[in-house]
Amino acid sequence: MLQGKVLVAQGGGPTAVINHSLAGVVLEARKIPAVTNVYGAIHGVRGIVDEDLVDLTQETAENLDRVGDTPCSGLGSTRDKPDEKYCGEIFKVLQAHDIGTFLYIGGNDSSDTARIVGEFAAKSNYNLRCVHVPKTIDNDLVINDHTPGFPSAAKFVASAFAGANLDNRALPGVYIAVVMGRHAGFLTGAAAGYRKYEDDGPHLIYLPERTFKLDQFIADVKATSDRFGRCIVAVSEGVHDESGQPIIAQLAAEVERDAHGNVQLSGTGALGDLLSDHIKSHTDIKRVRADTFGYLQRSFLGVASDVDRREAREVGAKAIQFAHFLDRNGSVTIHRIGHYAVDYRFNDLSDIAAKTKVMPDEFINPEANNVTGQFMRYLRPLLGTETPDFARLREVSVPKILNK
Amino acid sequence: MLQGKVLVAQGGGPTAVINHSLAGVVLEARKIPAVTNVYGAIHGVRGIVDEDLVDLTQETAENLDRVGDTPCSGLGSTRDKPDEKYCGEIFKVLQAHDIGTFLYIGGNDSSDTARIVGEFAAKSNYNLRCVHVPKTIDNDLVINDHTPGFPSAAKFVASAFAGANLDNRALPGVYIAVVMGRHAGFLTGAAAGYRKYEDDGPHLIYLPERTFKLDQFIADVKATSDRFGRCIVAVSEGVHDESGQPIIAQLAAEVERDAHGNVQLSGTGALGDLLSDHIKSHTDIKRVRADTFGYLQRSFLGVASDVDRREAREVGAKAIQFAHFLDRNGSVTIHRIGHYAVDYRFNDLSDIAAKTKVMPDEFINPEANNVTGQFMRYLRPLLGTETPDFARLREVSVPKILNK
Repeated sequence: MLQGKVLVAQGGGPTAVINHSLAGVVLEARKIPAVTNVYGAIHGVRGIVDEDLVDLTQETAENLDRVGDTPCSGLGSTRDKPDEKYCGEIFKVLQAHDIGTFLYIGGNDSSDTARIVGEFAAKSNYNLRCVHVPKTIDNDLVINDHTPGFPSAAKFVASAFAGANLDNRALPGVYIAVVMGRHAGFLTGAAAGYRKYEDDGPHLIYLPERTFKLDQFIADVKATSDRFGRCIVAVSEGVHDESGQPIIAQLAAEVERDAHGNVQLSGTGALGDLLSDHIKSHTDIKRVRADTFGYLQRSFLGVASDVDRREAREVGAKAIQFAHFLDRNGSVTIHRIGHYAVDYRFNDLSDIAAKTKVMPDEFINPEANNVTGQFMRYLRPLLGTETPDFARLREVSVPKILNK
Repeated sequence: MLQGKVLVAQGGGPTAVINHSLAGVVLEARKIPAVTNVYGAIHGVRGIVDEDLVDLTQETAENLDRVGDTPCSGLGSTRDKPDEKYCGEIFKVLQAHDIGTFLYIGGNDSSDTARIVGEFAAKSNYNLRCVHVPKTIDNDLVINDHTPGFPSAAKFVASAFAGANLDNRALPGVYIAVVMGRHAGFLTGAAAGYRKYEDDGPHLIYLPERTFKLDQFIADVKATSDRFGRCIVAVSEGVHDESGQPIIAQLAAEVERDAHGNVQLSGTGALGDLLSDHIKSHTDIKRVRADTFGYLQRSFLGVASDVDRREAREVGAKAIQFAHFLDRNGSVTIHRIGHYAVDYRFNDLSDIAAKTKVMPDEFINPEANNVTGQFMRYLRPLLGTETPDFARLREVSVPKILNK
């Protein structure tokens, strides 16, 4: 039974729908008569320790709906990953403000924070419910079929590649784009989301779940260019060699050897640029371009999956319901039923905390350079019902006269 | 009076709405009884010389509408900039196929091509109408109030910065994004398109119309960070020093001096990365991130201004109407009347060809680090009527207990 004060915070990288989870928490909590206040922490756990709290009970439902539709953590976020001592500080503030329920919207680190704070409360015989509400664009939370935030980021990446494919068809060459996700390749795989015609790119997709081999990469790009006269490549920022060393380091070392110079490694554009140069120096392909999608993937205004919006709202509401009716700590998880619907369950915080899910084998082709039809079936409903479409001219050739 | 065969081609960089101009040309031409065929050239002037033509008379209006809504030159494009000899080759093919009207959708280079081909026809006493249909994301065609393609690219850039602003508010620091447009700053200025609250970024906008000074840049970033605790910067890829030397070259030279190394200049991410490093080494700001929007600006699927779609369609239709009723060569131009409507006029090809429009002084603030209210009034209607919105929580503070 929820009662008294509820505190909600947002952690880690923003997503396009994280504020729907916030709105879900606040609006659902306010339906429970014994709940007196819903507080929000400014900039996540940092705001709790600093007692930088706002009273969301005084927000209108109308504004909460509009904030829900606004990308990026409306309460502010933090990169702080609390250790035991930090969690102790959090607990002290919760205790001082007489908080009965603490909800943390975030990835697996946030789940772990909720777990440790819950343990502090238990040790102190303080009655506190700690609940983790899932979000991450990387889609790497275990147990979950997928995580709120991922579908909208996936829609952005799919739309970007669909556009780049049309651009590349108009002005052929090799196009590489680097996608977020250091360990899990789901978001990079989403590059294939809106492929339609047989020759549509991305033609090659390199995921962090597999070893990246530079010679195989060059052979793949050559074969695709020979076949289609062009080639679009999606590559995860996390691609690495057999030893786990990032490919960017290997490429940089090569350039250094060649030029006796130094190469910028820290910059966001470096991997794409180095892969471009590698293609230019190892093939006779002249037009090679690279983009790095960067922060646009998680924050772009106006591109969200409607399915993602709905589910993000619902995990927030379910977090309150589970805490209220089951009266224990836990993490809300999303499970797929049918094709396509979802159900929500309540798991132990320790089942989610500090674990990482990666792409299963059946989502990756044997050549390790593309996704499978199974992945497409997994991905498509997540992208939502408002699908941007594109069409081609049906080219009826005019007989040549001069060059017969 | 239009009669016989019409040939249409698309040149230069793709835009989100260039196919609406194509659809406008084809559908309007097919309304004229004496027009027997509408041909399209595959990959622009290159396709004309190669006689790589398709018969668009056999396209359905339904599919042309759908292709219109598809970003990036549906006929394919080319970077070829024809000289006199090349234009002579074009003319030979037009003559062989008995083309009566040639329309080229493109920037000022395309206008010049139409002009030269028209001169070949006149010299040969061959009856040919040559018409230029405007498009460019850079918005740099003279006489035109704006150019089809720019409003949609501007909407992408405005949406990207609005999202980046929310992201940066959630996790404060310095964020830089590099925007296309080597000589004209309109697209970089569009970064301000969706600013709403007083502290919304981009806080600083650097345009190629003004000299970029690294020490002023550092001072601007510091002042903004001190004021708002964060700073968002929009910078044109074309920023340069007093002598016209690109800033990227200056920064690269500095790094080389410091590290006795070489720096990648060709890569798309280099300018943003170098500016980031410059801030880190010249201030005590720790969190600095840079993105380069790259090809997404002109090709992203699903972000187009409805005003741009409508006008791109109309310039195509007007090109046919002007050629038909005025019976002379020319370039269609867009003129703003009221706030907001447009009218179209027909100008001499030589008035558009090989000239470049840049931002007028009244669109740039005296400090050369932002756009003015006049620019905002110019820009807003172009972004279209479907405006993505965002909202903030109205933060009611909870009194502190422990840290009173």
